[in-house]
Amino acid sequence: MSKTRKHVENLSKLNAKDMYNGDFFLTWEKSDDEIKAVFEVAQALRDLRERNISTKIFDSGLGISIFRDNSTRTRFSFASACNLLGLEVSDLDEGKSQIAHGETVRETANMISFMADVIGIRDDMYIGKGNAYMHEVVDAVAQGHEDGVLEQKPTLVNLQCDIDHPTQAMADCLHLIDHFGGIENLKGKKIAMSWAYSPSYGKPLSVPQGIIGLMTRMGMEVVLAHPEGYEVMPEVEQVAMENAKKSGGSFKRVNNMAEAFQDADIVYPKSWASFAAMEKRTDLYGKGDFDGIKALEKELLAENAKHKDWECTEELMKTTKDGKALYMHCLPADISGVSCKEGEVAASVFDRYRNPLYKEASFKPYIIAAMIFLAKVKNPAAKLEELEKAAVQRWNQD
Amino acid sequence: MSKTRKHVENLSKLNAKDMYNGDFFLTWEKSDDEIKAVFEVAQALRDLRERNISTKIFDSGLGISIFRDNSTRTRFSFASACNLLGLEVSDLDEGKSQIAHGETVRETANMISFMADVIGIRDDMYIGKGNAYMHEVVDAVAQGHEDGVLEQKPTLVNLQCDIDHPTQAMADCLHLIDHFGGIENLKGKKIAMSWAYSPSYGKPLSVPQGIIGLMTRMGMEVVLAHPEGYEVMPEVEQVAMENAKKSGGSFKRVNNMAEAFQDADIVYPKSWASFAAMEKRTDLYGKGDFDGIKALEKELLAENAKHKDWECTEELMKTTKDGKALYMHCLPADISGVSCKEGEVAASVFDRYRNPLYKEASFKPYIIAAMIFLAKVKNPAAKLEELEKAAVQRWNQD
Amino acid sequence: MSKTRKHVENLSKLNAKDMYNGDFFLTWEKSDDEIKAVFEVAQALRDLRERNISTKIFDSGLGISIFRDNSTRTRFSFASACNLLGLEVSDLDEGKSQIAHGETVRETANMISFMADVIGIRDDMYIGKGNAYMHEVVDAVAQGHEDGVLEQKPTLVNLQCDIDHPTQAMADCLHLIDHFGGIENLKGKKIAMSWAYSPSYGKPLSVPQGIIGLMTRMGMEVVLAHPEGYEVMPEVEQVAMENAKKSGGSFKRVNNMAEAFQDADIVYPKSWASFAAMEKRTDLYGKGDFDGIKALEKELLAENAKHKDWECTEELMKTTKDGKALYMHCLPADISGVSCKEGEVAASVFDRYRNPLYKEASFKPYIIAAMIFLAKVKNPAAKLEELEKAAVQRWNQD
Repeated sequence: MSKTRKHVENLSKLNAKDMYNGDFFLTWEKSDDEIKAVFEVAQALRDLRERNISTKIFDSGLGISIFRDNSTRTRFSFASACNLLGLEVSDLDEGKSQIAHGETVRETANMISFMADVIGIRDDMYIGKGNAYMHEVVDAVAQGHEDGVLEQKPTLVNLQCDIDHPTQAMADCLHLIDHFGGIENLKGKKIAMSWAYSPSYGKPLSVPQGIIGLMTRMGMEVVLAHPEGYEVMPEVEQVAMENAKKSGGSFKRVNNMAEAFQDADIVYPKSWASFAAMEKRTDLYGKGDFDGIKALEKELLAENAKHKDWECTEELMKTTKDGKALYMHCLPADISGVSCKEGEVAASVFDRYRNPLYKEASFKPYIIAAMIFLAKVKNPAAKLEELEKAAVQRWNQD
Repeated sequence: MSKTRKHVENLSKLNAKDMYNGDFFLTWEKSDDEIKAVFEVAQALRDLRERNISTKIFDSGLGISIFRDNSTRTRFSFASACNLLGLEVSDLDEGKSQIAHGETVRETANMISFMADVIGIRDDMYIGKGNAYMHEVVDAVAQGHEDGVLEQKPTLVNLQCDIDHPTQAMADCLHLIDHFGGIENLKGKKIAMSWAYSPSYGKPLSVPQGIIGLMTRMGMEVVLAHPEGYEVMPEVEQVAMENAKKSGGSFKRVNNMAEAFQDADIVYPKSWASFAAMEKRTDLYGKGDFDGIKALEKELLAENAKHKDWECTEELMKTTKDGKALYMHCLPADISGVSCKEGEVAASVFDRYRNPLYKEASFKPYIIAAMIFLAKVKNPAAKLEELEKAAVQRWNQD
Repeated sequence: MSKTRKHVENLSKLNAKDMYNGDFFLTWEKSDDEIKAVFEVAQALRDLRERNISTKIFDSGLGISIFRDNSTRTRFSFASACNLLGLEVSDLDEGKSQIAHGETVRETANMISFMADVIGIRDDMYIGKGNAYMHEVVDAVAQGHEDGVLEQKPTLVNLQCDIDHPTQAMADCLHLIDHFGGIENLKGKKIAMSWAYSPSYGKPLSVPQGIIGLMTRMGMEVVLAHPEGYEVMPEVEQVAMENAKKSGGSFKRVNNMAEAFQDADIVYPKSWASFAAMEKRTDLYGKGDFDGIKALEKELLAENAKHKDWECTEELMKTTKDGKALYMHCLPADISGVSCKEGEVAASVFDRYRNPLYKEASFKPYIIAAMIFLAKVKNPAAKLEELEKAAVQRWNQD
């Protein structure tokens, strides 16, 4: 039995029918079945791709991307996912666009969506803004579709907002499923999502929030570690707490990297700005107080510099489970002595985990493709079976 | 009988055979049959898309875009049209290109066209330049094709020049056809193409010129209204006059917004710079006199500010036919109190017409696709029938 | 018998099997059979395209481009080649990317290659850098493929490095084959690859190096002419010398344009910076000495200006074989009195050869496509035959 066949069987037992014609904002807005369905479809799509079987479900159509922040990994993951399903990417470069001062999101969203099947958005810079913007876009195009302006309702894929980074967290989780040999093996595993020192400023909160919001659903022991003052959004901690309760796992917060690493099966050391600082920055930005932003930045860098000891060192790695915890990162990492003088992780640790880190990243295109697939196909299990059976060669090399 | 079938029947009675292998510069260079053929094909393509039937007539091939001015709506409309027919868009970003100082248009045009089936160009900034540039490009690639440099002669689609904005005017007209239930119902309808105040400067003339150049062919009563000094190109007024005579409609020019709106079925209030000012600016630009341009800009903004009363208000709307004229705009509009303090249109008027405005815009991708289709298919009626019959699913969702 | 059929027959006698799954860095790393195979495939692909037969061998997949220097011709040639084979282009714009300071080439290369079948790179600015960078990328993705990070090993196409410009040199050579009616007719032909004056600075060496490295394999009499101080890389001259010995042609270097042009069948006058100057510049760049770079630039322009008599004039052209040598250039050329006051070539000479120059350029997309084809198809001759027989219409116009 092919891997795809196995994933199809698993998928057919899950209830993911509400994902059809839906959008993907936050992982905790999805049911357990829906989360699992994304994993099953992602794995099936990867298996088919590995066996050179085409998974194009679109003959034509556009995938629109809007990146309000620089991006390489996610940009190419989105492009790959769209291409895998038959969609051509068209990027809205807000710099080159004629978007009038005061033009509503509603208008722009409709104007770019006449033939858009998918819209992928990254907007992670300001607290309270990114996710809200995505909702505005979705409301606009849903209305546009209802009004006969758009032939189809484009599906939103959140490529990182101020609250969650669902494609990253889910790719990370699929990496764990792959590494530990099944979703059921994640139960009881300890993961340390830890703040780490970086000489840069203002890194988004969406990765730590995404990780605690998702991994707590897998029955894992999730420990969030950071210096005082680097709190994440309280509502996301609340989500993590409730998830842990339901899944039979646990969630706790500590102010000590060593405690988090102790006997951990997985460590995820990564810098971020504090929620409070990000909120302050958003306010200053709203007021156009750029001197204030500069002053804040200076202050925050000084604050950061007090915590240079929050580094993922060889010594700390030795304290993890058998000294062999799986090291994770969303990349690019701040590597001490490589990309900066002092950073998130020792070069020798990073180097040892380079291969698993790249594998971790390689799941993202399939996660995005699976989110789109589930939103665009009425009966995903049957469609995967049909694709496997048709076995159209993706790359006609023979 | 399907809508497509009906459009195919209409199309088969029209003589559009000279459009094959042709280009689209100005609407008034096309016969009535050719203009109607574009509408029929656009409607058929829309019907097929709505019924999830693929209209790909290219297995591979490129659609080249050259935008010499910022654009969102037209950029995505062109990308959508190309994608609908199976062409991949490749944008010539003149900033990133190695176009040598003094490199001829002829050379660049050939170098980007080796596998180009379509070239879409927006160049609307300077009087006497945009349309001339498009002709240079077409002459160059026609020569290149003849000389065996290019395997195919790319088709030009004018995405806005200094004289006409044919994809906009034709999308606007198809919106009217759709709204009033048929091209024959446009006869006798009064349309007010009116200047309106905007706090910005140098808006192109191509929209008002495109509208008076096209709507006068539909037997409509076309009124062009603007303050003194905001004249459009005299040769386009001449075209409008002759069109009106032939079609049994009328064309007149007034210096009074209220007069234009009186009993109008359709109003199109929109700002533009005067032809004389644009010519002056083009001359200054040619001389490299940037101080002169700045001075001119100041002068023109001061002139504009004398006409803040040229606003599409609720009061004016009440004077239109039954107080319910169809409000049109090419978007984005300058909305008073929204995108600017004082602008082209009152916010309440704009809001009430938001849905029809978006619908108006939604015809543009189909108009562009129809222009390409008619230039690329020998027997368009037969091909549409064939596509409908083959019924290849665009989006394989079931 | 179709042209394709003839090229298939020629191809089937050549041993190009090591190109499968390979990369294309430098022409002199390829065997004679491999070079010939590229020409045969390029000609077959062109014939099929001319006969409107689809050559898509990919149902989906990405072609990644990385341009570290401005480009029009090569950018569109790469896009055309990818499109011809069914790949969608995705450009890595290093400006818009989140590539961390100190991020390794290995990491970036993997992150953009999850679904990349081809990577095309132009990096020609610094001596010792471009080709090395391409090797780093290839090593990284080969490792990534071995490690299961990438489903496929992307194929590198060198779109110009510091050492060679293989797609240009091979397109140039195919132009000669086409012009003189067969590769066997190149034997004994004299080609003058000559330096020419240009008012600009720092033009790469890869074109003259590519030309002498390739044309010496065709049994041609290759003369490299330049003023003293404008030497190319000695190791490439070495390659040319050895090639000439093996092929029964000749290679010599002169410091005199007139001598090079005398009785030449082909002339290729083009400016470049000297190897020594480029090396100096690379060193200064490495040290971040931008004042030093400015001073060097001034010095080099002054040096250049001493050689304004190195211009391809009508007088010089008269001294060539029957006064009718084929004039070549990679474009854009510095044309005297057109793109600059004094340049590489007289306007009347350039104008007379405009058509052959464009034809020369038109081979590049097919050369790139052929390089990809040979790297991606196990049995290229059989596949070409299969494509011809299937005769899927590229452009469904009838």
